[in-house]
Amino acid sequence: MQFTIEVIHSPALLPFYNINGKTVVVIDILRATSTLCVAFKTGVKKILPISTPEECRMFKDFDFIIAAERNAEKVKGFDLGNSPFEYENPLLEGKNIAFTTTNGTRAIKQAKAMGAEFIVAGSFLNINFLCNWLVKQQHNIILLCAGWKDKYNLEDTLFAGAVISQIGSNYILNDDAALAAQFLYNQHKNNLEGVVRQSSHARRFTALHANTDDVGYCMQHNICDVLPIMEGEYMVSFKSQLTASSSS
Amino acid sequence: MQFTIEVIHSPALLPFYNINGKTVVVIDILRATSTLCVAFKTGVKKILPISTPEECRMFKDFDFIIAAERNAEKVKGFDLGNSPFEYENPLLEGKNIAFTTTNGTRAIKQAKAMGAEFIVAGSFLNINFLCNWLVKQQHNIILLCAGWKDKYNLEDTLFAGAVISQIGSNYILNDDAALAAQFLYNQHKNNLEGVVRQSSHARRFTALHANTDDVGYCMQHNICDVLPIMEGEYMVSFKSQLTASSSS
Repeated sequence: MQFTIEVIHSPALLPFYNINGKTVVVIDILRATSTLCVAFKTGVKKILPISTPEECRMFKDFDFIIAAERNAEKVKGFDLGNSPFEYENPLLEGKNIAFTTTNGTRAIKQAKAMGAEFIVAGSFLNINFLCNWLVKQQHNIILLCAGWKDKYNLEDTLFAGAVISQIGSNYILNDDAALAAQFLYNQHKNNLEGVVRQSSHARRFTALHANTDDVGYCMQHNICDVLPIMEGEYMVSFKSQLTASSSS
Repeated sequence: MQFTIEVIHSPALLPFYNINGKTVVVIDILRATSTLCVAFKTGVKKILPISTPEECRMFKDFDFIIAAERNAEKVKGFDLGNSPFEYENPLLEGKNIAFTTTNGTRAIKQAKAMGAEFIVAGSFLNINFLCNWLVKQQHNIILLCAGWKDKYNLEDTLFAGAVISQIGSNYILNDDAALAAQFLYNQHKNNLEGVVRQSSHARRFTALHANTDDVGYCMQHNICDVLPIMEGEYMVSFKSQLTASSSS
């Protein structure tokens, strides 16, 4: 039996697809799904995606570290924002984080609400680890671009194309959005960072965060051998899942 | 003052954009906006976009020719479907047509509901005529891809890229969807028809309409010097508008 790969350019288009029982790869390159990878590499235990900063703030009372980003900036009064650099801090090892971002955490929650069987987070930081897992999984795949406030975005589509370029030959690609993502990636694979720096989102960052190069960080390949995966309401590390079950 | 061009990949994403007071170019290459161009070239007087075949059928009582397509096929009991070949018929000259299609007429009605100032139909058949009009118009432009049942489609995006390639240098392009459409067009401009034949929509047609080459027809450039434009509830020909006002 052959499986399918489809690409969805915006969470707002989820209702037009059959998600039920499929594996959804949530993609928010700048920056939520990149940041999730860094957090699990650092050794964070569990990350709870939350819809709003108001709800997220409540989890401070339950021994969570609270993290919130809106409009590409850290929300005032939170422990962390959404920059991958913040999640390299070794003090985060073993901690639980309640996490809300403009696009990424919303896409994760929507995929869950629509009945996805597995929800994982993809980024250039863990692309090989992700692709190996996907191929072993033998499942129908949805590559869900988180976009920017429900609009199409360039870096998430490029990443969808990169995944298809790695594993697509084993799958059925009937979907125009998947074809277009593959075309886009093939056209720019030798200058990915240059193209992403042209994107509206990258320009938004450069204006806001002149001191840290989040875009350059998120365009690194395979520096995190982890797979953030949803278990109940939490994102956990697939590696730590394995460790947990093998040691129990 | 410089104006903007934005691209919307699906009518379902319209609510996330500010359409109010802008010029919306509705794009349904296979086939509604191509067919509109052919109809006006033939000399059809007015075309009334209608949401459903049931409503459309009623207009038979008011001396309209009735046309309906669903799922790429002519609906039973209607005078016409949505193939451009049907609209070359000289008997249509001077007639009014009530017209409903799976994607294109819906996109036109949604753009109107969202407050667009001008709504025009674009296709490869009238691309130069359209682009000349757009540039003279001096207006903010939305290129609205009708897609397929609210999903992304390749041929509409290629056309959006073709328009940007012709006139984009005069406009502000801040939008990732516009950048991606332009990339896609530049990559494939020497083999447009070949790429469109790979699209899910083209494969759908080839299976259904083996005897007519609607895809080849719709990929011809500049065979219709007309611009379908909305006036009240009707699509009319911009050329005939001019003639009407100059002769009145």
